[in-house]
Amino acid sequence: MKVIWNDQIVDRTEVKIDLEDRGYQFADGIYDVVRAYNGKFFTLDEHIDRFFSGMSKIDLEAPFTKAELKERLAELLNVNKVDTGNVYFQITRGIASPRDHVFPEPTVVPPVFTASTTVVPRNEEKMSKGITAAVVPDTRWLHCDIKSISLLGNIMAKHTAHKKGFDEAILHRDGIVTECSSSNMWMVKDGTIYTHPDGNLILPGITKIVLLRAAAKAGIPVIEKEFTLEQLKEADEAFSSSTTIEAMPIVEIDGTAVGTGERGPVVEMLQQFYIKEIEAQCGSIMENSLI
Amino acid sequence: MKVIWNDQIVDRTEVKIDLEDRGYQFADGIYDVVRAYNGKFFTLDEHIDRFFSGMSKIDLEAPFTKAELKERLAELLNVNKVDTGNVYFQITRGIASPRDHVFPEPTVVPPVFTASTTVVPRNEEKMSKGITAAVVPDTRWLHCDIKSISLLGNIMAKHTAHKKGFDEAILHRDGIVTECSSSNMWMVKDGTIYTHPDGNLILPGITKIVLLRAAAKAGIPVIEKEFTLEQLKEADEAFSSSTTIEAMPIVEIDGTAVGTGERGPVVEMLQQFYIKEIEAQCGSIMENSLI
Repeated sequence: MKVIWNDQIVDRTEVKIDLEDRGYQFADGIYDVVRAYNGKFFTLDEHIDRFFSGMSKIDLEAPFTKAELKERLAELLNVNKVDTGNVYFQITRGIASPRDHVFPEPTVVPPVFTASTTVVPRNEEKMSKGITAAVVPDTRWLHCDIKSISLLGNIMAKHTAHKKGFDEAILHRDGIVTECSSSNMWMVKDGTIYTHPDGNLILPGITKIVLLRAAAKAGIPVIEKEFTLEQLKEADEAFSSSTTIEAMPIVEIDGTAVGTGERGPVVEMLQQFYIKEIEAQCGSIMENSLI
Repeated sequence: MKVIWNDQIVDRTEVKIDLEDRGYQFADGIYDVVRAYNGKFFTLDEHIDRFFSGMSKIDLEAPFTKAELKERLAELLNVNKVDTGNVYFQITRGIASPRDHVFPEPTVVPPVFTASTTVVPRNEEKMSKGITAAVVPDTRWLHCDIKSISLLGNIMAKHTAHKKGFDEAILHRDGIVTECSSSNMWMVKDGTIYTHPDGNLILPGITKIVLLRAAAKAGIPVIEKEFTLEQLKEADEAFSSSTTIEAMPIVEIDGTAVGTGERGPVVEMLQQFYIKEIEAQCGSIMENSLI
């Protein structure tokens, strides 16, 4: 399999990350994941914009323009012949030896860029049946808007849910639901959708942007406003969203059914409208769909 | 220069970290830094204990015993002929491909261990003159007791201080001083030393342990209790502590002198007692000392 290593497309086995890469010792880097359907990127511009915004937030200077990056990612997708799948890409502040907390001079230490692809079909069965979740305290840092590789808080939250036998972790700060361990969080009550507003406590999801557009087209009201664990308990539906899982019903929280315990009508309609958004950019994906 | 790569001592150039090492993509790892004087480790047991405690806190199973790790680090120190310097060592949850937030099965994916050495003489001039610091909000996660490689919050705080022209960042949460960006924080008022108690908001410093012992021997009272930025402003002395900097006077905060603006008598006495602790384990280090 081919990957991108700085400005080259090389065989995966050729890549040699240095043990003093600041990504490896300080989590000093930014990443993103963009999805393709029918071999075509979906919402690529939005992902690239967020990636550049993240670099800017940590004072990391991009070694390429947005257009150059887009071209490079498209080339990788093409070389690896990915039809439906993800491109993961990340940039770190480079190899600074000896290790030092202080940021190195960018003119001396260039960043390190890597990207790889994974074939990931749409999991329609899961999107139909939904997943389970556990409520876990949100103990992450206060810059969750930055899509950084400093992810130990996120993966520990997911691990906490897994150890209890649940699929995902719903995070809260003092009873306010923020997001999930690797996705945005939504609830539905009396026909209205609620989700945490953007800011420093959640990732500004690209799928969230698309779902807001989809909801508007479907005529479903959305309020971007904090909601509590108590309100979530009374919700008619709950779902999470991310690039890979799209809109994913959460049918059980801490062992208790959400609403009917099955996918609800609002998230199902959103899923259908989300597919329309995909198809507008990437062409038909519904030939074998079960949804 | 030689480094440790898993269970081998190899040339630094031979090490090839995988782009899907979970340390590189999730900051899923633990590290520590232990110092040597006269080619002998100082407080090695305490550093090894903390390293194992950190692994345990993130459910990462050690691939070696404490005794095996100590032996391996001693061998590296010896091979690289380090007299006064640091050994940096870290462990990550290994190479799990394709990338997935979910922890991999430890029986399938072994951890990746790396260690390297740096010659770092004692900076006696700095320890005598002191450093400057800026006050910066502590926006890190709520597991600062875990010495993980998820350090973006720490290095961003230090960078914020550097951009303003200061050496170090003094972190606070809602006005309560926690620690510095890569060291513990202390203040002196009316002959008593204050420092934040251990817990989830600060790293349990090994140098802190030694300084508490040194203070007891020097007859200086220490209270491990939260103090505020307001109290810090009224302090007679301030200093930070870490493995490399030992007890480092902070003589200026946000442009205002602390006490007299020079190293104070309490930190100077602590430095002298700290040297006694070093010498008890590593032999005389004072031949060329300026302190």
